[in-house]
Amino acid sequence: MQNLKLIKDSKYSSNNSNFDSIMKWLNLDFEKVNDVILTNMRSKVPLISQLSGYIISSGGKRIRPLLTLATSRLCKYTGERHINLAASIEFIHTATLLHDDVVDESMNRRGKISAHNVWNNKSSILVGDFLLSKAFRLMIKDGSNRCLDTLSKASVEISQGEVLQLLTNNNIRTSESQYFDVINAKTAALFSAACVTSAIISEVNKEKEVALFEYGKYLGTAFQITDDTFDYYSTYKNLGKDIGDDFKEGKVSLPIILAFNRSNEQEKNFWLRVINEKKQRKGDLLTALKIIEKYNVIKDCFNKARHFATMAKDSLGPFENSDEKEKLLNLADFSVDRSS
Amino acid sequence: MQNLKLIKDSKYSSNNSNFDSIMKWLNLDFEKVNDVILTNMRSKVPLISQLSGYIISSGGKRIRPLLTLATSRLCKYTGERHINLAASIEFIHTATLLHDDVVDESMNRRGKISAHNVWNNKSSILVGDFLLSKAFRLMIKDGSNRCLDTLSKASVEISQGEVLQLLTNNNIRTSESQYFDVINAKTAALFSAACVTSAIISEVNKEKEVALFEYGKYLGTAFQITDDTFDYYSTYKNLGKDIGDDFKEGKVSLPIILAFNRSNEQEKNFWLRVINEKKQRKGDLLTALKIIEKYNVIKDCFNKARHFATMAKDSLGPFENSDEKEKLLNLADFSVDRSS
Repeated sequence: MQNLKLIKDSKYSSNNSNFDSIMKWLNLDFEKVNDVILTNMRSKVPLISQLSGYIISSGGKRIRPLLTLATSRLCKYTGERHINLAASIEFIHTATLLHDDVVDESMNRRGKISAHNVWNNKSSILVGDFLLSKAFRLMIKDGSNRCLDTLSKASVEISQGEVLQLLTNNNIRTSESQYFDVINAKTAALFSAACVTSAIISEVNKEKEVALFEYGKYLGTAFQITDDTFDYYSTYKNLGKDIGDDFKEGKVSLPIILAFNRSNEQEKNFWLRVINEKKQRKGDLLTALKIIEKYNVIKDCFNKARHFATMAKDSLGPFENSDEKEKLLNLADFSVDRSS
Repeated sequence: MQNLKLIKDSKYSSNNSNFDSIMKWLNLDFEKVNDVILTNMRSKVPLISQLSGYIISSGGKRIRPLLTLATSRLCKYTGERHINLAASIEFIHTATLLHDDVVDESMNRRGKISAHNVWNNKSSILVGDFLLSKAFRLMIKDGSNRCLDTLSKASVEISQGEVLQLLTNNNIRTSESQYFDVINAKTAALFSAACVTSAIISEVNKEKEVALFEYGKYLGTAFQITDDTFDYYSTYKNLGKDIGDDFKEGKVSLPIILAFNRSNEQEKNFWLRVINEKKQRKGDLLTALKIIEKYNVIKDCFNKARHFATMAKDSLGPFENSDEKEKLLNLADFSVDRSS
């Protein structure tokens, strides 16, 4: 595929130095969150500790707990409650990942073999349940009904989003707005809940709480669009998954929704065969990437992601300028301009 | 299998009239619980409502919410909080059933085709997540941190029990005490939490709370042993599942643990082949039932169940005699002396 311009070049990517500086800034808090995660994933049943440890140590950016930690700083929060709550948010997310990988029959997650392929589907399902229950235990320990309300609502939303996504799979006629319904529920809901959590524990005013809700929501939207776009514009090394994974699974995400709508009859038939009829042959991914390139889809996807990142940044209007706010503005840029 | 005495006869069964009278007693409360269940299983995603409706309307005895309703009466509770909490307990249980059926690859549940066979594994996993999150939403709505603590702890326990059970599957050398670890976690924990919930909302003293904890725990143990025994001593019509389902799945439950320990070398080899090596042939179930009969296993299983039912009854010592207590004593008997 070296002849395709789609493969990562400098055009759409920046380096990750903004993100690194945010991680450094939150380093001490993150260590505490990690301690809470390690303590709470332990179980008297060794398989649970092992499988939880495997998926959690698979890394990833931990962007959801990061949001809670970073927005707590923005709100000048001085207590310790954000630590447990950030850990609980990561647990909700990890439980989802475990079930997601079973549902999607994914081979890899971030360059490592998926947990359900190391162990089995059964273990992944049940350990996912364990982690979700543990997430609630951590929230309950915090004791705030408003946090519980916010995070449990997000948890319901996520599961609805996952089911919605299941229904759009292998249906290339999924509309762009249906796609947004899916990612609002499966991604944006927990991103915004992670930010609202900080607003609640910091007891900021309603205006700032709404600002954080919107910041998280739009950031999550930008983040997911970027993720989905990378699936057609990345390399194994960068994203920790093969390019075209979504394609092979028949997952209907923004790049192919746009490509389908812009396609001519012959190309539409191609999409119907590979996505709806699930009849994929060698070379189909390359054809898909060529159609995507022909209609400038990658650029438009990144533009849409940028649109939401900008909305995220403007949502922070009610907060006065500060170093903390600067970091969160950078984070919104990073959600799109990242190299993985 | 008509020549086997194992098939249900009058020896170990009573009629279900005690249970019917309890249901009648709690009828109005149960209608309210059903309303809450129906309202909360609704989703903007029709598949979720349909699948939830299917599994919930599959019936079953609803023994867990029943325990909350009945023990609330025992505690002279006069409010309405037990309704939502009972519904939330049924949601935790239903989520478990959905995931259980996927994990066990069960064909049927209570005589109906299992949800994952009507829809698919993916939907069952995700709708299970939805119901578990909804369970927490309902508890959170109640607002009591002690109830949340009790029920979330039970939810963690259940998932641990399910994983433990996974590890004992296809291992006929599982000890009786390991079996009890499994059923304590996967069944007794939620039974006792369902009863403690009533103690908490009724604000009874610590002695009575402990009494209800133990009542639920022992009742759950008796109930699960009976269930597991019925799998080798029932008919399709009665239990809503085929006799020998556990056997076919290689699930290691009390009847075959006892049978294995009492077996001679040749019989032990039989168990190792059919359970550990999963090599089952036509006629093996009949052989298993014959060994079970030879060593009086069914009778001993029911005796063990009865032992725990008696402990459940005696746990209620701190409560003075009343009609309500009488009903709960009858319920403990019913957990063993039922015909399905």
